[in-house]
Amino acid sequence: MAEGAQTGTQAQTPARMRRPAAGAPLRIALAGLGTVGGGVLRLIEANGALIARRAGRPIIVTAVSARDRDKDRGLDMTRYAWEDDMTRMAARADVDVVVELVGGADGPALTLARQALRSGRALVTANKAMIAHHGMELAALGEQSGAPLRFEAAVAGGVPVIKGLREGAAANAVDRVYGILNGTCNYILSTMEDSGRDFADVLAEAQALGYAEADPAFDIEGTDAAHKLAILAALAYGTQIDFTAVETTGITRILAADIAEAEALGHVIRLIAMAELEGEGGRGLFQRVQPCLVPFDHPLAHVDGPTNAVVVEGNFSGRLLFQGAGAGDGPTASAVVADIIDIARGIAQGFEADMPFSVPVANLEALPPAASGHRRARAYLRFIVADRPGVLAEITAAMRDAGVSIESLMQKGRADSEGEVLVAMVTHEAPEAAVTEALRLLDGSPSLLAKPLVMHLIEK
Amino acid sequence: MAEGAQTGTQAQTPARMRRPAAGAPLRIALAGLGTVGGGVLRLIEANGALIARRAGRPIIVTAVSARDRDKDRGLDMTRYAWEDDMTRMAARADVDVVVELVGGADGPALTLARQALRSGRALVTANKAMIAHHGMELAALGEQSGAPLRFEAAVAGGVPVIKGLREGAAANAVDRVYGILNGTCNYILSTMEDSGRDFADVLAEAQALGYAEADPAFDIEGTDAAHKLAILAALAYGTQIDFTAVETTGITRILAADIAEAEALGHVIRLIAMAELEGEGGRGLFQRVQPCLVPFDHPLAHVDGPTNAVVVEGNFSGRLLFQGAGAGDGPTASAVVADIIDIARGIAQGFEADMPFSVPVANLEALPPAASGHRRARAYLRFIVADRPGVLAEITAAMRDAGVSIESLMQKGRADSEGEVLVAMVTHEAPEAAVTEALRLLDGSPSLLAKPLVMHLIEK
Repeated sequence: MAEGAQTGTQAQTPARMRRPAAGAPLRIALAGLGTVGGGVLRLIEANGALIARRAGRPIIVTAVSARDRDKDRGLDMTRYAWEDDMTRMAARADVDVVVELVGGADGPALTLARQALRSGRALVTANKAMIAHHGMELAALGEQSGAPLRFEAAVAGGVPVIKGLREGAAANAVDRVYGILNGTCNYILSTMEDSGRDFADVLAEAQALGYAEADPAFDIEGTDAAHKLAILAALAYGTQIDFTAVETTGITRILAADIAEAEALGHVIRLIAMAELEGEGGRGLFQRVQPCLVPFDHPLAHVDGPTNAVVVEGNFSGRLLFQGAGAGDGPTASAVVADIIDIARGIAQGFEADMPFSVPVANLEALPPAASGHRRARAYLRFIVADRPGVLAEITAAMRDAGVSIESLMQKGRADSEGEVLVAMVTHEAPEAAVTEALRLLDGSPSLLAKPLVMHLIEK
Repeated sequence: MAEGAQTGTQAQTPARMRRPAAGAPLRIALAGLGTVGGGVLRLIEANGALIARRAGRPIIVTAVSARDRDKDRGLDMTRYAWEDDMTRMAARADVDVVVELVGGADGPALTLARQALRSGRALVTANKAMIAHHGMELAALGEQSGAPLRFEAAVAGGVPVIKGLREGAAANAVDRVYGILNGTCNYILSTMEDSGRDFADVLAEAQALGYAEADPAFDIEGTDAAHKLAILAALAYGTQIDFTAVETTGITRILAADIAEAEALGHVIRLIAMAELEGEGGRGLFQRVQPCLVPFDHPLAHVDGPTNAVVVEGNFSGRLLFQGAGAGDGPTASAVVADIIDIARGIAQGFEADMPFSVPVANLEALPPAASGHRRARAYLRFIVADRPGVLAEITAAMRDAGVSIESLMQKGRADSEGEVLVAMVTHEAPEAAVTEALRLLDGSPSLLAKPLVMHLIEK
C-alpha cells in the first residue's frame, strides 16, 4: 500500500486481529498430542534457537490440549498450560496461533478451527479431511478476521508443496498437477513390487509395522489421497475445493500379477492423484485418484516406500517435482512449524496478502466436474476369465466393437486358481468412453469371473 | 508488530522505500533482453491476467534496456520505454522493481543492482555469479533501504529451491544440502551414459545443440555449480556466502570407461554440489562441487538431461527433493516472475521480514572452510597405467601403505590406446586424507600415464 494509505488500511483491519509486538514471542496453543503433536513439541524444543533467529522472534508453546491428560508422552508437559476443553484455547489471551492436530473433518477439530479464526488467531493445521470438507468456510472466516490459515502439512507431509504450488509456481498457468499423495498405498505397492507378494499379505505386514492403520480403508480406498488432491486442485486452478467430485479408486484390487505384467511392459503401478482444468467447449475441473501405470523413465516411477511426490506442470516452468516423506512425526512437524514461521515472519506486517488460496474465497470459481469420457489415454485392462475356448475371442470382439485397438495382450493361467486364466492387455490411445463401452459389452458375460480392472498409463 | 508500535516502525522505514498503492500495478524495469528477458516479457504477456489475480495487482513492464536496441526479438518493444543506459532505470519514477537479467558478476549488472537497491527499488535477478560474489553487499543495501532482493532464478532455474530451503525447510537444522546444479554437465554426463560416447564428442554435440556455450569452461569446470552452491549454503546455514571456499572439480576428465565402470557397480556419475556444516571440534563450512558416483536407488540417479535437482536433508523433514528444468527461457522466467509476485503480494505490507538470507546480513556467520581430510567416504579411483608387470602391485601397495582397503577392482586394456591399461577401484570407507596419501605415494611413478581420477560415492 502507499504510505499515505496506511490509515485506510488500518481501518480495514478487524479489531480482533492479533499481532504480538515486534520481536515478541509468537505464542502457540497446540491441540492434539499424538504422533504429530509430540513431533511439533520436540521440534520447537530442539530447533528453538535456530527458529527464533530465522523467524525474527521466538516461537513458544503456551497451552496444550489432548483427550488424555495423563498419558505418558515422554515429554515434560508441566511447562504448558493444560486445557481440558480445547476450544478454550482460542479464547486465551496468551495465544496468537492455534495449531490443530486433532484430526477428523468435523467434531472438535472443526469447532476449534472456527473459533480460532473467528477470534482473529492464526490457524495452522495438518488436517486434510477438514480442509477438504470445510476449507472454503475456514478461509472465509480467516479473511473476515484477518487471521491467516495455513495447512502445508495437510498435503504430502513434510514436503513444502502447498508453498511450491501457491508461491513457487505462481507465475504459471498449471497444465496439470498430479502425484503420489498417500504413503501407505505407495508403501504397499512398492513392497508388492519388490517382493512379488499379494495385496492382502503386504497390507497385513504394513499394519503390523505401523505403516497402515488398523482400519486402513481411508488410505487404501483412495479417500486420503482424494482429500489432498482436492486441496491441490483448488490452489492450482483458483477453484473452490470440491472433494466430492474426485473420482476415486483405491488399490485393493491390484494383484501381484498386475504388478508383474506392468513391469514386463516397462512400468510400475502407483496410486496417482491428478487434477486438470478443461478449457475448450465448457470449462470443468478433472480430479481423479486411480492406480496408474507409470513408465520407468518417469520421475514418479522411482518414488518408493512411504514417500510422497507431486508434479506441477506449469506452462512456463515445465515439470516441477516436489518429493519427500509423506507422513511421520518429524516431517509433518517440519511442515507445521514452517507454517508457524511464515506467520511469525509475516505477522509483523499484517495478513491482507496472505490469503490461503491466493485470492479471496468469493473469487474462487465453482467449476463443474469435467466429463472424462472424451479423455484419451492408453489403458491397461485385466480380466480373470474361465479357462475355456472362445473367451479371448469374446473379449477382443468387444474391444473391436467399441473401437478400441489393442497394443499388446498377455494371457496366462493362474497357478493358485485352477480353471482361471488372467488376460491383461494394453490398448492403443483411445477415448475412455470407448473402453467403458467395451466393458459394458462384456458385462454379465459368464466368461468373466471377476470385475475387470482398468488402469490408465501415464505417458513420460 | 503490535498495532501500537505502528508509528515506531514507520519511523524505521527509509523514506526511499517505494510502495505502490494497494491494488495499483507493480511496475517493472527489465534489464537484459536475451533468452530469459524475452521469456519474462512473454510470460507476463501470456499469464498477465492470472498473475494479477494471484498477486492482487497487475504486474506491468514500464521500461526495458539491452545492449542492442534494434535487434529483432520477435516481441513488440514499442510498448516499453527504452533506456540506452540501463542504470537510469533505477532512477525512473515509474519503476518499483528492477529485474536484472544482464549477467556477469560485475560490470553493468552490479552497478544497476546497487543503484536499484540504494534507491529503495526491489531487485530481482537470475545472476548467480553476481549473488555469489556480491550477495552480502547487495543484501545489506536492501536492508538499509528496505528494498527486497530476490534471486530464485539464480539457483536451479525454474525450480523454487531458494523458497523451499528458506521457507519450506525453515523449521529444520539442515544436515546436508546437495544436488545437481548445472544442466550442461548433467546433459553431457547422461548423454555419455546413454550413448557410450566420450566427453569431447558429447560436448561438441551439446554446443551444436545450444545446450553448452561456445566457451563451456564456466559450466564444465564446475564454476557455475559452485556459484549456486555458495548461495544455497549461505541460506541453509545462516553463513556469509563464501564462493572462493568451494572446492571445485569439473567433469572434463571423465571417460566413457568411468561411466561404464560406475554402471557395473550400480551407479551413475553426476556432478554433485554439496554443502555441510561441521560441528564438533571447530565449526566450519564444507562446500564442494565434484563428480560423484550416485547409486541407482538414489533419487539423483534418475535426474537426466539438463534437469536440476536439489536435496535438502533436514533434521526433522528428512530428505526433501526439488527437481525441474535448470535453465531455459520459460523455466527461468517462471522463477523470476515468482519473485516479482512475492514482492507484489508483500509490498502492500513492508519489507522488514523479507530478508533474503532470513536474518540481517550482520548476523550471518563467517565460517572458515571445513577441512576435508577427515571426511570418510568410499572412493572410486581410476588410473591409466602402462601395460607391464608389477603396476597393479605398485598401486595396491600404495593403498595398503596409506591404510586404504579396496572393496573392488577392475583392470582392462584400452581398445584405442595400445600399451595402456585402465585400472578402476572402489575403496572401502576411508578418510579422504588416506586416499590422498596413497596417491601421493604413487606421485611421479613412471607406471602412471595420467593423473588418477578420484570421485566419491554418495550413499543411498
